[in-house]
Amino acid sequence: MLFLYICGMNLSNDLLIRAAKGEKVERTPVWLMRQAGRILPEYRKIRNSLSGFKELVETPSLAAEVTIQPVDILDVDAAIIFSDILVVPDAMGLSYEMIEKKGPFFRTTIQSQKDLESIEIPDVEDKLSYVFEAIKITKKELNGRVPLIGFAGAPWTIFSYMTEGQGSKTFSKAKKMLYQNPTLSHQLLNKITDTTILYLKAQIRAGADLVQVFDSWAGILNKEQYLEFGMKYVNKICDAIDEVPVTVFSKGAYSTLHEMAQLNCNTIGLDWNMDVQNAKNIFNNNKTLQGNLDPCALYSDFKTIETKTNLMLNKFGNSRHIANLGHGLYPDINPENVKCFIETVKAYNYQNK
Amino acid sequence: MLFLYICGMNLSNDLLIRAAKGEKVERTPVWLMRQAGRILPEYRKIRNSLSGFKELVETPSLAAEVTIQPVDILDVDAAIIFSDILVVPDAMGLSYEMIEKKGPFFRTTIQSQKDLESIEIPDVEDKLSYVFEAIKITKKELNGRVPLIGFAGAPWTIFSYMTEGQGSKTFSKAKKMLYQNPTLSHQLLNKITDTTILYLKAQIRAGADLVQVFDSWAGILNKEQYLEFGMKYVNKICDAIDEVPVTVFSKGAYSTLHEMAQLNCNTIGLDWNMDVQNAKNIFNNNKTLQGNLDPCALYSDFKTIETKTNLMLNKFGNSRHIANLGHGLYPDINPENVKCFIETVKAYNYQNK
Repeated sequence: MLFLYICGMNLSNDLLIRAAKGEKVERTPVWLMRQAGRILPEYRKIRNSLSGFKELVETPSLAAEVTIQPVDILDVDAAIIFSDILVVPDAMGLSYEMIEKKGPFFRTTIQSQKDLESIEIPDVEDKLSYVFEAIKITKKELNGRVPLIGFAGAPWTIFSYMTEGQGSKTFSKAKKMLYQNPTLSHQLLNKITDTTILYLKAQIRAGADLVQVFDSWAGILNKEQYLEFGMKYVNKICDAIDEVPVTVFSKGAYSTLHEMAQLNCNTIGLDWNMDVQNAKNIFNNNKTLQGNLDPCALYSDFKTIETKTNLMLNKFGNSRHIANLGHGLYPDINPENVKCFIETVKAYNYQNK
Repeated sequence: MLFLYICGMNLSNDLLIRAAKGEKVERTPVWLMRQAGRILPEYRKIRNSLSGFKELVETPSLAAEVTIQPVDILDVDAAIIFSDILVVPDAMGLSYEMIEKKGPFFRTTIQSQKDLESIEIPDVEDKLSYVFEAIKITKKELNGRVPLIGFAGAPWTIFSYMTEGQGSKTFSKAKKMLYQNPTLSHQLLNKITDTTILYLKAQIRAGADLVQVFDSWAGILNKEQYLEFGMKYVNKICDAIDEVPVTVFSKGAYSTLHEMAQLNCNTIGLDWNMDVQNAKNIFNNNKTLQGNLDPCALYSDFKTIETKTNLMLNKFGNSRHIANLGHGLYPDINPENVKCFIETVKAYNYQNK
């Protein structure tokens, strides 16, 4: 029984897992990127009682609590562990701060061979124990209601922050390194990849039922560069994870969708600009597709949200689809509008399409 | 003679104009977006002697001087008037500040019908006289050496700033208005479009030999929205301008390239992520293509810059191409590397391809 539980087989709602594997589902499962977070007053109450974002990420009982909030409040078909992709560089020895209204900031960045040697492939079980503890608490409290999604940033996206030091419109410092020092770039990407594989495997051991890799900055590289510095490492991760289904979400990777069809993963996330029919043609039922309503559509009135959600569901059809947004929820979206989206997916009648 | 001069017929180097019109050229013309600016020490010297960016934009003799600098120093085949796309909302009554290291900031934004009524379609000749004066001085000082490019932001991009108030990763406030108040959105877009047409026509009267419309935030709208709120207004502008060749650069508009083939313009700018062969297939020699080296490639050594530039030139072929980057120059790029790019284009042997 314990074994079955750990393997995520004992779920009363396993729609997400079956949809990811391409199995038959009674209806399309639905969850939302950034569902645990600022849109919920219940989240803000906890967040505001703390010194900062990192305290929440690093306190397992609270991270578990905000992870479960959207399951209780929004009735989504999956929980995703509340954390941040930047815990990986943090564990490697490159610490970040989360600055209110500005985003992440690294005091030091990787610029040289010496910098590279100053960071390590850490003992993740030790350095990231707070994440695994949060996963264990969440799994226990969810008690099989819905699957729990683990996640990590893709190596290129983590590399971008470790070299750029903060968010950027162009990530020109990160890209500069690719051009000026491809060898160092690959060394850093390899170190991140090795850490990420260890990290995801430990999340799975702790109880994650599915893992998602977020390549948030895929879209700033051209095709040639994304294949060399981005997808190559996503590929390594996909090949290394065979315990649970894997989802890859490469935002803005319009020019490499054909190559993504070769990834050893179950699900491909589509951003709101990606054409659903084009993606269906490319992935040809060999992958489940996840997405992709424009998050800003949730600023509309209920009627418009229903119309746009049904339109999206029509495009994807009734198999190999996990309903989601094409990007994370924005903080000022009304939770009632999010509920409208979720209820529309659940009420969708396949005969309508 | 004066008439010919005003019409841009008296240019000793008219490669850009001929390439835009699809006429035969001896070699591919080359210029760079943001060629007048922070990469040049000569620019920084002038800029640092002033109180701010806006003083430079609004002082015709100095704007003309920095416009001509890259012609003298880098030997490009065109000048582009030094200005900012945000002079348009400024002239409409919505003033902006340029905050060092942060970018543009509007103290008030357009959120309601009342806000919309508070701005006007201005008498551009009066309100933007400093731009036309700068164009006249530049034309006089260039004395026909190379063409002068005028420009404006596309209505959707200007709308984004007028509603969002500043740069943003998501422009979710701007997009929120499209969803919550499409009628108000169209009214504002129409007001911006009418102003932009008057503005571009006045630039042409002052001496601009070609005009470019920059839709910097095209890529954050999905296809349906870009057609409705973006391209529709670019189309109006293209239809209104018949005095000189028009270039449209819609950054990130991957899903609407087919529709852009219908625009009444001569040249389409491609960003560095756009696939050249795909664009050639879509535009089928009916448009000139401009671009599209990754600006970060100019961080490489000379040999790599040469290789990557030649590779790009091979892809475009020897007709209907204006060599440029796929985005503006970044401020910390070495001018010597920019020269290497320019010289490589000029030395390109068509037999090589």
